[in-house]
Amino acid sequence: MTFKAQVDDIRHTLSHITKFDQQRAAGYFPELDGDLLDAILTEAGRFANDVIAPINFPGDQRGAKLDGGGVTMPPGWRDAYEQWAQAGWGALPCRAKHGGQGLPLQVGLAVQEIWNSASMAFGIGTILTQGAVEAIYEHGSEALQAKYLPAMISGAWMGTMNLTEPQAGSDLAAIRATAEPRGDGTYAIKGSKIFITYGDHDLTDNIVHLVLARLPDAPAGTRGISLFLVPKYLVNDDGSLGERNDVACAGLEHKLGIHASATCVMAFGENGGATGWLLGQENKGLACMFTMMNNARLHVGIQGVAIAERAYQQALGYAHDRRQGRRPGGHEAAPIVEHPDVRRMLMIMKSYAAAARSICYLTAQALDQARLAPDEADRVAGQDLADLLTPVAKAFSTDIGVEVASMGIQVHGGMGFIEETGAAQHYRDARIAPIYEGTNGIQAIDLVARKLPVKGGEVVRKFLAGIREDVDLILEGENISLGHTGHRLSEAVKALSETTDWILQRGADEPDRVLAGAAGYLRMFGLVAGGVALVRGARACGRDGAELNLARFFCENIVPHVAGLSVSVTAGADSLLAMPDDQLAL
Amino acid sequence: MTFKAQVDDIRHTLSHITKFDQQRAAGYFPELDGDLLDAILTEAGRFANDVIAPINFPGDQRGAKLDGGGVTMPPGWRDAYEQWAQAGWGALPCRAKHGGQGLPLQVGLAVQEIWNSASMAFGIGTILTQGAVEAIYEHGSEALQAKYLPAMISGAWMGTMNLTEPQAGSDLAAIRATAEPRGDGTYAIKGSKIFITYGDHDLTDNIVHLVLARLPDAPAGTRGISLFLVPKYLVNDDGSLGERNDVACAGLEHKLGIHASATCVMAFGENGGATGWLLGQENKGLACMFTMMNNARLHVGIQGVAIAERAYQQALGYAHDRRQGRRPGGHEAAPIVEHPDVRRMLMIMKSYAAAARSICYLTAQALDQARLAPDEADRVAGQDLADLLTPVAKAFSTDIGVEVASMGIQVHGGMGFIEETGAAQHYRDARIAPIYEGTNGIQAIDLVARKLPVKGGEVVRKFLAGIREDVDLILEGENISLGHTGHRLSEAVKALSETTDWILQRGADEPDRVLAGAAGYLRMFGLVAGGVALVRGARACGRDGAELNLARFFCENIVPHVAGLSVSVTAGADSLLAMPDDQLAL
Repeated sequence: MTFKAQVDDIRHTLSHITKFDQQRAAGYFPELDGDLLDAILTEAGRFANDVIAPINFPGDQRGAKLDGGGVTMPPGWRDAYEQWAQAGWGALPCRAKHGGQGLPLQVGLAVQEIWNSASMAFGIGTILTQGAVEAIYEHGSEALQAKYLPAMISGAWMGTMNLTEPQAGSDLAAIRATAEPRGDGTYAIKGSKIFITYGDHDLTDNIVHLVLARLPDAPAGTRGISLFLVPKYLVNDDGSLGERNDVACAGLEHKLGIHASATCVMAFGENGGATGWLLGQENKGLACMFTMMNNARLHVGIQGVAIAERAYQQALGYAHDRRQGRRPGGHEAAPIVEHPDVRRMLMIMKSYAAAARSICYLTAQALDQARLAPDEADRVAGQDLADLLTPVAKAFSTDIGVEVASMGIQVHGGMGFIEETGAAQHYRDARIAPIYEGTNGIQAIDLVARKLPVKGGEVVRKFLAGIREDVDLILEGENISLGHTGHRLSEAVKALSETTDWILQRGADEPDRVLAGAAGYLRMFGLVAGGVALVRGARACGRDGAELNLARFFCENIVPHVAGLSVSVTAGADSLLAMPDDQLAL
Repeated sequence: MTFKAQVDDIRHTLSHITKFDQQRAAGYFPELDGDLLDAILTEAGRFANDVIAPINFPGDQRGAKLDGGGVTMPPGWRDAYEQWAQAGWGALPCRAKHGGQGLPLQVGLAVQEIWNSASMAFGIGTILTQGAVEAIYEHGSEALQAKYLPAMISGAWMGTMNLTEPQAGSDLAAIRATAEPRGDGTYAIKGSKIFITYGDHDLTDNIVHLVLARLPDAPAGTRGISLFLVPKYLVNDDGSLGERNDVACAGLEHKLGIHASATCVMAFGENGGATGWLLGQENKGLACMFTMMNNARLHVGIQGVAIAERAYQQALGYAHDRRQGRRPGGHEAAPIVEHPDVRRMLMIMKSYAAAARSICYLTAQALDQARLAPDEADRVAGQDLADLLTPVAKAFSTDIGVEVASMGIQVHGGMGFIEETGAAQHYRDARIAPIYEGTNGIQAIDLVARKLPVKGGEVVRKFLAGIREDVDLILEGENISLGHTGHRLSEAVKALSETTDWILQRGADEPDRVLAGAAGYLRMFGLVAGGVALVRGARACGRDGAELNLARFFCENIVPHVAGLSVSVTAGADSLLAMPDDQLAL
């Protein structure tokens, strides 16, 4: 279960795929040079290896517990968290205000990848806090910002997102929690929320809940939802903690994985009403929450990458240690890493992780452009691209996270099924990421129904044109170490372009036909975008060897799946639409 | 968590895909008519629904436990098992000798599918007992048969397979357990075995272990391994139980899934030697064990089908109950089964299960032919086909079992991640099947390196020719309800045939290149064989509707993946073979 943070792979991605230096040269973040970046990544890697990774397996075995007073975390977790906060890791991704370090999102994503490889159950709490901080920056009054952000950014307090109710999961229109104005600027919040990650715990002395609820007489549906800040403990004007607010953890879920992350049933206002403050405008809560959810979606995407990386490292280590079966001509049992079938599995795992990583950092790069580009048109283009890529980053990465974790067990053979080995935990932990922050089905629908049609399809067509340019360059320069890479990518991008046009033409008139293929289309998109990015990065790093070979493996073995997917997306829906009445009857 | 045994789907498979009546008409099993078959399946379904399914979830939660005296099963398990044995289910698949009912394997497989859908942890114990019975029939002396088989067949005792040792998993050549002749016809067995499924438990009063061990001066490697029968309790001549033998469970594994199935470390001969009897000839133990393993491989394949079926039922039920999001034009939240993306997932799950089921029953049909055909040439052809299909039945079915169980969680959204929902257990349980009884990597190697080359490739070429005939018939008769089915299958079988020839041409000279693509080839084989079988069955049942639509869905959406796989298998290995030294370094 040794883990060594993937500092080199992340550095390669930032140097040669998102080409970090180009944004720096363009004046996005002049303070951040390569040396500082190296220092941050190296130190994050050391911290993850030494402090976070060791609490992951014991945290899973013991899990978070609810007793009379609230949720207690596994032994060692508070200590690890406090070290993390004291080292300033909470402040790193936050804006340069109220204590944030103002680093680009690409760097914030990099350290999140590292935390989540070390422990997904640890990482998710910091992701949600970061999302809550972002929402308060964006929608909170100056007074709320001044009161809550310094402690949240320093890591002294954590934050949560309270959206889901039993009847309102993917469908937030059905939310019933209520907020009654008290006439003093505060609101009395009442209602029950479920699946609240880090809803309660003893890592910090206060927890800042962001809660969706309805005002009296609010319109039905999503246009009647408002966002409130509801702290666990009220905060005095001097910043000290006051009374306990009327919010409590009423139950903990018994989950498949991320056992150390407390998934809470939260009861608001059981004793008259929890005190809350409005964030943003009345009835605009969903839009405010989406600010935060888009960010969280990218970070859940990086969890998919992170767990794939962790599972890969685990399997690679075992494949070197375990000896079974002779190689042709060998006299003793060989490490199984030498067997072609095991090698194939490891390369699938590694190349999927690398491809998904590329997509996530390209999304972060686009968001950095949206926020930091000096030129308005560049900022708009950055946001457009980020909007397009976010569902792919979330869904593709978390899907492959599960697949890679499953393959990681397979590499171990029987030992993989034994919990003490550690591979099984990754398989269990990975499974939440395709679900939370918008299921991958929702991401696929978002991609085909909302993101592709933006500006009449101009955004996606421009992205695809950029990919075709890359592929043309690859075809021109193709050499022996890349084999059939250019040809495979060329076929795949053609299929993706045609399928994109097919969707753009039919989306409005035949929504069910398009939605039936949404998940397959998202996968195609991820395979092509990931494959091209890997080749771009391998060529840019200017040496033959492992990066080129990895890109080649992916393009020759994984990218060809685009062909079958395109058939399914464009010509596979008829049987769903023509379904006889008894087909899916109970 | 309601479960309703899949009696109709199995009956459809036997009636229209393996065409059971044709073998009956040919005199293989004249006693078994459709009415008897219906009675057996219906009663097995009822028993599974009422007695086995209810112990599955509680059995998982509590698991098997080891205390001083041995392993105790969860509450209710012994009672359920005794009812099962008393109803004669253990005797059903056994030959008509020593109490077996002499039914064809297809029927035995059918009831195993049902037990394993109800509870994989329950089913695996009965599969292993059946395998042990088969090995004793095949290799045991008359005296050993008379002494052990009646009680094993009646279900009074269970059986196990003791192969694995810490250093000997996939590589049985490394086995070290020893057997010393005592001069009285018995042997003193010593050594430690791991991963022994149902190695100890309190379901039955005796357990009959089949154990691989080495005689003194046996040749090294696989040619020096012998097979022994080692009972937990010695058996007196009158059949009553005598002294406890020198074998004990020394530890239980803490596993990802199938918690109620005790996975034991077994200690033989800690007090001088466990008493064992030779089965078959000295040093021929591996061949004897393979008799039993081939049978077990098919049965593990059906576990993949069974868990896919169970996960599908679970997801389907939830998709009908759960309402989220309006359909276009709807006024209230619709059951999620109506959303195209959920429908797509459910159809993938259902069609994968049906395709894998077809392959498993076609394998059983071939084995029935091998055993029961009046004509020698037919028996040989049956065995050849069964040998070819067994690795596909095992690996394809168990791979899709994991994928379908994972998708089953996804259909549930957040509820899928909660253990009480039940979907998570299927995901955990399913994960063992691609590993045990020969990992799926081993199955793929078996297929390309041993099975394809049999008789110069004649067996596989004949199988593919039969598929092409089917496809031609489909193309001729293609109608609106089948859409592009014939065309998709035609493309896929062409790719499979070409890839098969490619492997047959290169297997001897470029083994690594072929082995690197073995898993992909097996998947192609499963997709094509499964797709053709589904269409054959749908057409044979002579009505439009659900079966045709299911077959069409599979052929239009899943079978097209063959194209990408064929690229990977035939042209994807270069990057593995050209791997730079540092590619998979630690």
